[in-house]
Amino acid sequence: MAGQHEAPDGLMAAFHAYERALMDDDLDAMARLFAPGADTLRGDAEGLLVGHEEITGFRRGRGGAPRRRLVGTEVRPLDADHAVVVAQTELERGGRGLQTQVWRREAESGRWQVLVAHVGTPAPALDTRIWRVVGDPLVPGAGTGALAGETVAVKDVYAVAGHPIGAGNPARLAAAETEVQHASVLGQLLAGGADVRGIARTDEFAYSIAGANPHHGTPPNPRAARRVPGGSSSGSASAVSLGHASIGLGTDTAGSIRVPSAYQGLHGIRTTHGLVDRTGLLPLAPSFDTVGWMTHDATLLRRVGDVLLPTGQYDGLGELVIVPELLALATPEVADAVAARFAGVARTEHWDGAELLASYRRAFGTCQGFEAWQHHGAWLTGRLDTLGPAARARFEHASTISAAEAEQALETLLEARTTIRDFVGDRVVVLPSAASVAPMPAEAEEARERTLTLTCLASVGGLPAVSLPLSTASGLPAGACLVAARGRDRALLHLTEALS
Amino acid sequence: MAGQHEAPDGLMAAFHAYERALMDDDLDAMARLFAPGADTLRGDAEGLLVGHEEITGFRRGRGGAPRRRLVGTEVRPLDADHAVVVAQTELERGGRGLQTQVWRREAESGRWQVLVAHVGTPAPALDTRIWRVVGDPLVPGAGTGALAGETVAVKDVYAVAGHPIGAGNPARLAAAETEVQHASVLGQLLAGGADVRGIARTDEFAYSIAGANPHHGTPPNPRAARRVPGGSSSGSASAVSLGHASIGLGTDTAGSIRVPSAYQGLHGIRTTHGLVDRTGLLPLAPSFDTVGWMTHDATLLRRVGDVLLPTGQYDGLGELVIVPELLALATPEVADAVAARFAGVARTEHWDGAELLASYRRAFGTCQGFEAWQHHGAWLTGRLDTLGPAARARFEHASTISAAEAEQALETLLEARTTIRDFVGDRVVVLPSAASVAPMPAEAEEARERTLTLTCLASVGGLPAVSLPLSTASGLPAGACLVAARGRDRALLHLTEALS
Repeated sequence: MAGQHEAPDGLMAAFHAYERALMDDDLDAMARLFAPGADTLRGDAEGLLVGHEEITGFRRGRGGAPRRRLVGTEVRPLDADHAVVVAQTELERGGRGLQTQVWRREAESGRWQVLVAHVGTPAPALDTRIWRVVGDPLVPGAGTGALAGETVAVKDVYAVAGHPIGAGNPARLAAAETEVQHASVLGQLLAGGADVRGIARTDEFAYSIAGANPHHGTPPNPRAARRVPGGSSSGSASAVSLGHASIGLGTDTAGSIRVPSAYQGLHGIRTTHGLVDRTGLLPLAPSFDTVGWMTHDATLLRRVGDVLLPTGQYDGLGELVIVPELLALATPEVADAVAARFAGVARTEHWDGAELLASYRRAFGTCQGFEAWQHHGAWLTGRLDTLGPAARARFEHASTISAAEAEQALETLLEARTTIRDFVGDRVVVLPSAASVAPMPAEAEEARERTLTLTCLASVGGLPAVSLPLSTASGLPAGACLVAARGRDRALLHLTEALS
Repeated sequence: MAGQHEAPDGLMAAFHAYERALMDDDLDAMARLFAPGADTLRGDAEGLLVGHEEITGFRRGRGGAPRRRLVGTEVRPLDADHAVVVAQTELERGGRGLQTQVWRREAESGRWQVLVAHVGTPAPALDTRIWRVVGDPLVPGAGTGALAGETVAVKDVYAVAGHPIGAGNPARLAAAETEVQHASVLGQLLAGGADVRGIARTDEFAYSIAGANPHHGTPPNPRAARRVPGGSSSGSASAVSLGHASIGLGTDTAGSIRVPSAYQGLHGIRTTHGLVDRTGLLPLAPSFDTVGWMTHDATLLRRVGDVLLPTGQYDGLGELVIVPELLALATPEVADAVAARFAGVARTEHWDGAELLASYRRAFGTCQGFEAWQHHGAWLTGRLDTLGPAARARFEHASTISAAEAEQALETLLEARTTIRDFVGDRVVVLPSAASVAPMPAEAEEARERTLTLTCLASVGGLPAVSLPLSTASGLPAGACLVAARGRDRALLHLTEALS
């Protein structure tokens, strides 16, 4: 049933032509029926597209709209050449959608075109890009305690009793046993009063920093629409960004907490290597794997640390230093944001060790790959085709690393470790958490190398690192990374809270 | 950052005044800033509100909007007196919202007012009105089989291994043991290839037909915005309506499959009492409890029956008869829809037994209450305050029913059963599935009595009943109920498929 208003001449014909074009995925017809130029807008739950070009590009990439039929239309003529059409639709997959279109009649041709469109479609049962399982809650916590009322998104590499570990790979999930005991950190969080909201997606075997997963899709980055979320703790990060959970439990081997924190504007910590019990955590490269978590704010980041971190005696921290050579490894917009944030807070110090980071990163990659293959090679042999292209390429390369190569790389890293620890000392070194803002998916692989060169500083050093959210001049999220000496995690969290 | 267009005089002041009013929940200010009259529109994921009055009524009931801040605004002036403002917001709870407003300048006062608003807010991790736990999948099925590719929403009264049964009551959930084995029907569905999508909400202890739950909220009815979904298999029904699952597994004691099917325009079957194994099902009133399921279409309804129903020898069905005295128990719009659908298909037959249904329904209520208290009274004693008002009133009344009263009621029912079975015979009796369309929440209790008078026919008879979706003249969903002799479930499903 159409609303009670007489639609202007030709409007409903254009409206129905668009509806047909949408169902036929007729890109040309849709492009013709949207107003040309930079003013045209199209928004949905994933964000707002501005300009005809961006809109047609989006349509080209999505492979058709969900099947639907119209169940009601309300027309509101505004003047002779403008009208609003609000349509309720029924989706073939179920549920109702709502769509608002502002139409304009082109002066010359007299043709009606959409100037502004807002498309609402019903949410799925769960966003399977972010979650594997989710509940209200999935696992209840102790009910009382320091973390009562908080909810945890658990990266799918930790044991959750009653569920298998999937590690982002469906074949691994199908083959995995049901866990009988919670991972150690999870038990601590539950005892601390937090509930488990659900099990969150990860890059396959946590072996990436982009946050993409070829089986489940890429979790959204709500702070930077259509850019990658950062990984491998991607689902946990997006869950926190979207308010699905307040604590994103993840891991950080090569940057898997720091990178999604930076890309999504969250607070995140990777803890000192070896400081937090990793029982019940599926390893990637145990010599470097660490427990970490992400939150919206620095206070909760610290409060989680109060529950998970041992109380140590080394609680002092020296001065903050910022290193131009490390800033230079990032894009200018990220370097500028970090420098601006710490101007007057951190002392500038030069470090020629920064030029060694590229070689450290290579040695780190060799050791990480060697260990990853040691842990997963037996299972992956004959099953490499269950991996997506990126993880497959990494594991295939890892399978070729000889023990001798690994040993040599380890030697490099032991030296590097000393160099890094000596440089950091008792101080807090400030550097970019990632080399760039969240890249578009096509640029993620290129961004990876630059970022790993930065993140390997704490990874090789086995040092704790916090990512503090910043905003670049263009309004995109970025992160400043604060690296301290081993075991200074609690002090680092207090410093982070004080800085926020 | 505001979009590149110069906003007309006064527009942005009005826009920001509205934003402030929204954050302050200043109902008067919001009402003034929306255009008066019947033309004004406001839509969101729950549906479309038409007219200033409906919109202000909605605002009064919601208790404030989610906290948010603006992160970007795009303005598109249309003519001197009309403009569109598209705003991106960041919610305090996380995630980004998108809002499109069409503003109009009132000719006389020169004031700007919203004529059309479309509000998009980020979806939660899961809709806790519909689901307790949900997964991708929660429990994988056999992978192959007659139901491969289908997903099941399991009403929270069936055992799902690894999870406790909650029955819509948080205290019961907290006290319940983790189930070690799937309910019998669930095992059959999984073996048949279907996956379990999740555990769906129910009215407390399945003891209602409205579909409301005071602890978790009322699941949405996507086919009839803001009306009740029907219960007690409410979550399963809404999950199917929204496409979250393809099969809604529920139970039907007094109408808990037929009513949500009717209210939401689904196909549903309650099976012959005792025909389908109830092992692993929390009882309400075992003398009447039956297994049932709901689907979008009649073919899947039948395919599930192929898996769950025994193959019987009584597969024939006699003629369809429609009974004016039963139609008269429904509202005219529902009676008309049923009569129109079966004109020329069913023979009209009068039945004076229909006038006895009100007394049958009372006797049924007595037996149901007596059994419900027998099963749950021990646990509920001292815990009645954990129930919402409706379930509490029912259980409190149930606790007062004496064995003698129950025995007398049972005697009435045994006679009634014979009367009903004799009347149905080998035929298919057509009646309304519910007495009305889905009521608004305030009218649900009143609608209940009338509907139970109709539904008790199959409940007392222990007979199988299918609900076939219809549409009333005003476009709301309703249901035609087809009741057959005991054990004719398969034939009934085939007939339903043929009729669709």
